[in-house]
Amino acid sequence: MRIVVTNCNTTQEMTEEIVRGARAAAGPGTTVTGLTPAWGPESAEGWLDSYLSAAAVMDLLRTYEGPAYDAVVMAGFGEHGREGVRELVDVPVVDITEAAAHLACLLGRRYGVVTTLERSCGQIEDSLELAGVGRNCAAVVGTGLSVLDLGGDEDRTEAAFLAAAERACAAGAEVLVLGCAGMTGLQRAVGEKLGLPVVDGVGAAVKLAESLVGLGLTTSRAGSYARPVVKRRGWGR
Amino acid sequence: MRIVVTNCNTTQEMTEEIVRGARAAAGPGTTVTGLTPAWGPESAEGWLDSYLSAAAVMDLLRTYEGPAYDAVVMAGFGEHGREGVRELVDVPVVDITEAAAHLACLLGRRYGVVTTLERSCGQIEDSLELAGVGRNCAAVVGTGLSVLDLGGDEDRTEAAFLAAAERACAAGAEVLVLGCAGMTGLQRAVGEKLGLPVVDGVGAAVKLAESLVGLGLTTSRAGSYARPVVKRRGWGR
Amino acid sequence: MRIVVTNCNTTQEMTEEIVRGARAAAGPGTTVTGLTPAWGPESAEGWLDSYLSAAAVMDLLRTYEGPAYDAVVMAGFGEHGREGVRELVDVPVVDITEAAAHLACLLGRRYGVVTTLERSCGQIEDSLELAGVGRNCAAVVGTGLSVLDLGGDEDRTEAAFLAAAERACAAGAEVLVLGCAGMTGLQRAVGEKLGLPVVDGVGAAVKLAESLVGLGLTTSRAGSYARPVVKRRGWGR
Amino acid sequence: MRIVVTNCNTTQEMTEEIVRGARAAAGPGTTVTGLTPAWGPESAEGWLDSYLSAAAVMDLLRTYEGPAYDAVVMAGFGEHGREGVRELVDVPVVDITEAAAHLACLLGRRYGVVTTLERSCGQIEDSLELAGVGRNCAAVVGTGLSVLDLGGDEDRTEAAFLAAAERACAAGAEVLVLGCAGMTGLQRAVGEKLGLPVVDGVGAAVKLAESLVGLGLTTSRAGSYARPVVKRRGWGR
Amino acid sequence: MRIVVTNCNTTQEMTEEIVRGARAAAGPGTTVTGLTPAWGPESAEGWLDSYLSAAAVMDLLRTYEGPAYDAVVMAGFGEHGREGVRELVDVPVVDITEAAAHLACLLGRRYGVVTTLERSCGQIEDSLELAGVGRNCAAVVGTGLSVLDLGGDEDRTEAAFLAAAERACAAGAEVLVLGCAGMTGLQRAVGEKLGLPVVDGVGAAVKLAESLVGLGLTTSRAGSYARPVVKRRGWGR
Amino acid sequence: MRIVVTNCNTTQEMTEEIVRGARAAAGPGTTVTGLTPAWGPESAEGWLDSYLSAAAVMDLLRTYEGPAYDAVVMAGFGEHGREGVRELVDVPVVDITEAAAHLACLLGRRYGVVTTLERSCGQIEDSLELAGVGRNCAAVVGTGLSVLDLGGDEDRTEAAFLAAAERACAAGAEVLVLGCAGMTGLQRAVGEKLGLPVVDGVGAAVKLAESLVGLGLTTSRAGSYARPVVKRRGWGR
Repeated sequence: MRIVVTNCNTTQEMTEEIVRGARAAAGPGTTVTGLTPAWGPESAEGWLDSYLSAAAVMDLLRTYEGPAYDAVVMAGFGEHGREGVRELVDVPVVDITEAAAHLACLLGRRYGVVTTLERSCGQIEDSLELAGVGRNCAAVVGTGLSVLDLGGDEDRTEAAFLAAAERACAAGAEVLVLGCAGMTGLQRAVGEKLGLPVVDGVGAAVKLAESLVGLGLTTSRAGSYARPVVKRRGWGR
Repeated sequence: MRIVVTNCNTTQEMTEEIVRGARAAAGPGTTVTGLTPAWGPESAEGWLDSYLSAAAVMDLLRTYEGPAYDAVVMAGFGEHGREGVRELVDVPVVDITEAAAHLACLLGRRYGVVTTLERSCGQIEDSLELAGVGRNCAAVVGTGLSVLDLGGDEDRTEAAFLAAAERACAAGAEVLVLGCAGMTGLQRAVGEKLGLPVVDGVGAAVKLAESLVGLGLTTSRAGSYARPVVKRRGWGR
Repeated sequence: MRIVVTNCNTTQEMTEEIVRGARAAAGPGTTVTGLTPAWGPESAEGWLDSYLSAAAVMDLLRTYEGPAYDAVVMAGFGEHGREGVRELVDVPVVDITEAAAHLACLLGRRYGVVTTLERSCGQIEDSLELAGVGRNCAAVVGTGLSVLDLGGDEDRTEAAFLAAAERACAAGAEVLVLGCAGMTGLQRAVGEKLGLPVVDGVGAAVKLAESLVGLGLTTSRAGSYARPVVKRRGWGR
Repeated sequence: MRIVVTNCNTTQEMTEEIVRGARAAAGPGTTVTGLTPAWGPESAEGWLDSYLSAAAVMDLLRTYEGPAYDAVVMAGFGEHGREGVRELVDVPVVDITEAAAHLACLLGRRYGVVTTLERSCGQIEDSLELAGVGRNCAAVVGTGLSVLDLGGDEDRTEAAFLAAAERACAAGAEVLVLGCAGMTGLQRAVGEKLGLPVVDGVGAAVKLAESLVGLGLTTSRAGSYARPVVKRRGWGR
Repeated sequence: MRIVVTNCNTTQEMTEEIVRGARAAAGPGTTVTGLTPAWGPESAEGWLDSYLSAAAVMDLLRTYEGPAYDAVVMAGFGEHGREGVRELVDVPVVDITEAAAHLACLLGRRYGVVTTLERSCGQIEDSLELAGVGRNCAAVVGTGLSVLDLGGDEDRTEAAFLAAAERACAAGAEVLVLGCAGMTGLQRAVGEKLGLPVVDGVGAAVKLAESLVGLGLTTSRAGSYARPVVKRRGWGR
Repeated sequence: MRIVVTNCNTTQEMTEEIVRGARAAAGPGTTVTGLTPAWGPESAEGWLDSYLSAAAVMDLLRTYEGPAYDAVVMAGFGEHGREGVRELVDVPVVDITEAAAHLACLLGRRYGVVTTLERSCGQIEDSLELAGVGRNCAAVVGTGLSVLDLGGDEDRTEAAFLAAAERACAAGAEVLVLGCAGMTGLQRAVGEKLGLPVVDGVGAAVKLAESLVGLGLTTSRAGSYARPVVKRRGWGR
């Protein structure tokens, strides 16, 4: 099966990193194709970036002309757009935010999310709430690092993650979630140090997408996620 | 004071209608300027349209070069984008969805929303919930009419509204909200027939915007709605 | 338009102070009349005072014989009575507790309330919850000052406010609300020091009352706030 | 032990009826004293009556000069005032609304309340919510009968109760609560016809009051229900 | 009346201690019979123990051959099984977890639970939530002592309780609940030191059982707690 | 990888049916082993059966002596025990109730569950709530068929399912969940008739178990699901 993974920003290196994480998680028969939006923000931090990213990712999939695919993984932690993509495509769509939370719920009574900037916490909380998995989230905590900082000094990133993780655990988290696609790969190192399961949304979403495809399930067209009405739409200036 | 009212779609006639509604509500010292996005959907129905609209409205305000304004009213009922616009501009931003709900809460113990297509109901529920005013919403009910249908046969529109209103009242609504900017103007006619207060979001948002400006209040920059980080962003293809 | 502002206690000086705050917020065509209950507590702190105050304020309006008015503002932060007054009068009724919260929701993702004694916090939480605006309240925090203390040493009041505000912000508040009618006037000074919008309920309620009157809206008589049934009632010993 | 039962209205006959119900429930060593407010509404229906009643009941207890008592039962279903009375007296205070719900929770997974006029339903819902027992309430349903109607045609009252009960059961109720002190005595007849446990709040409150006294427990003075601050208060005109 | 009190574990000494607590709370006409499961855990800590205990207690009552009884009190704080026992027997069933919370709600606006090991806190929270009394629970806090530790050094137990109680109060608790049947008896000593009402679940459950029996109420058979369907069942290896 | 699937009852035929469903869902490298409890109910309907089943399933795994396994799937829809098994074993544990809900949340904005007897609905609601996935559940609806009826007349089962499904859709469900392990296999037939995705919990749980194993994740030992304390425990008479 082929899974298309969409980066939420225009940074090609991040797409590649995400694809590496996705491939590491994918089963033997799964091909992963990474897609980078042609426009949008170079990193998504805050609502303005997030809505811009949502439109750019929908445009990316709307104009996609590559080989057919079986599922979409949307790799923007806490970013908007998943419901729109569900309307647009006929295959299952899994957002890494909800994916990480779904798996985390199976591993402990409460989970916590460790993300980049404090300003992203509210957006992630909203995303989890609407996905229907907010109840068992004990806390969403920021590290103070921006998305683009993550690529830099690994030790600093890890130290910031561990400090934030401590706050999440004090709030009751028994499992942690990496709250940014750019953190993919960090789960093993910090998981061992913390003695806790740490869920990476990219891997989680790949497995959930494989699961849905394997079971022959796709998005309901009844009600909310009906196909978009045919009409005139302009996609940017 | 000058209030900029942004339509959520590219249909110029609808902007004009909204501006008429906004002016009817505005106080003596208030100037209303209507803005139509340069791109986006011709009407917003569903999540795909809504996220596209959010990006287009942010772009509209980002590139606006007219006279300075004191507040923004976002005239897309249930549409996304308000948080992004709050990051973008320094003046108060009021979305007609939340505005109608805020005033409706003051008029009865529970309110109901009557909107266009059934598929929009969930989106509106989410919008009210995140705005913090979902608790006293008894029901969001569809009329089965599309946004572009609204301009047509007035009797049909009114009949569809009244039928949907009945369902909202059966669910406990004591006040009604017009769930589409294109319904502006309908409030008087149906209000009298129903013997209930009917709140139009456009008028409500204008008054709330005037209120915030009058009190010298604007969006907090602490936390969620900090100014967007400076970075590269592409606004459409 | 004429707005009647009811103090929740019998302290005439506080009525005058509230009226000053209300007038500062009122639009050019608005006349503000302050009313002081003929009985009740000299300040309202706790449930006993609050229920007593509710009855006294209803009695005040029931027996009012002055010029006709267009709206009522109830100036008791966290105090009971608004639903009863909605049954009693035919014009819109706005309580300063809910008013402040409605506007605060438009200015940040979460708001906090800073009030007088710790014992009042629970009452305020309940009031916000029932008004339908509790969801986005991050915290209600006490300063330890009584209502009657507020008039005294301004520096102490401000210092106590700032200390409590810090706790509200730590809990996630991005906007603050003055949690006592007697704090009216403080918003500017503390707002500047905190770099946050600070909402005063009296001003907020005046603007919301003007908004409702301007839109021709008043309380629904369907269901909860139907006119009181005609019957014998004794108003105090 | 002596339990004082306060009627929420000035109708002496209703106090007597309530006292009969209370005595039927009381244990062998319990003396029940009924008190009727000297002022307030002749029946409590709606918020105006309810707040007036709250003040009158507090005044009643404040000025009570009879023999010492061990607990207060407040017999106004859905009426306000319990928190104020908790501040006022040193003995346990049990409101019949919460009492019925507490016992009903022990008898089935969801309970329903059948009350008088539809307009009272919202007030009861609020009262249950704040008492902390709203979660398992499936529905609050009106019979369309006023409080003063209840004394009249027994067959009509019973028929109206059974019809409303059916609606509560359709909403998931497995246990019913009599939603008015004036219904006391009805529980046996309708319970048998419905094949369901039916809880009368007066009896429930008497048993809970006896329980608290028996265990040596009384209201906490820490926080919310501290003693009223000493100050000037006028109790009515 | 005869109340059967079931210990949740196989430790006979604990049954005796619980029975002492139950008798201290019981009214003059009440006989208390303690029952110890024939199998199950020697103390219940965590979900594995709790489900095992639930089955053992159901088996205990299913095979009980003593004199008829009027009510069951289940003395395992936070342990499972109450709904199953409600299906099984025709008399009222009161679990000490919910019982303590029901009474605590009457004594303060928020209550807190102090229990044994931290690992039990989540289970207790779930139990309170499903019983319908979770809303006003401010916190469930562990002392770090195991169930079997409680019998030992009284001073250590009390000190651990007081330290945990402080945390519960900081979270808003105005009333405390002893979160383990093995703590029965501690309420008086710690209550005095804390100046707060402290509710013991065993005593509370006895009083609630007496209340239900006194009012002629028992579990509803409509819906959830219908009698078990007749079928083959094996009760252990 | 080897997945152990535990039936919640002693009916061997049902284990075989479940294993067939599990194998149909399993990936190429997955071996499925079905286990039937040595004791417990022959079918689980209601809380008594459910708690008995929980103990029997824990005993089954505790005494299991077959080849090592990588994950446990618990095949009792709405039945208790998952937290206890999480304490007991070191591999991931997935309950079919939560599994179906997790996948359903990815396929529509609201899902509904169609189960056997009405009496099971509440238990399922509780199970979903505690698993953290109750928010987006629109309804749990009974077909009126018992677990053991399901094996019989296929047409009747399907008709009953479709009638119940209609009620779930009227409540807002856009996706359906088979609310009983014995319904496994029905998803294709009813899904086509309804034009909706229908999720079978057994298949869903197998895929989620494979996902967790594939990602190297297992239950957190921090807090709730720590290993059981070593102590004496008797497993049945």
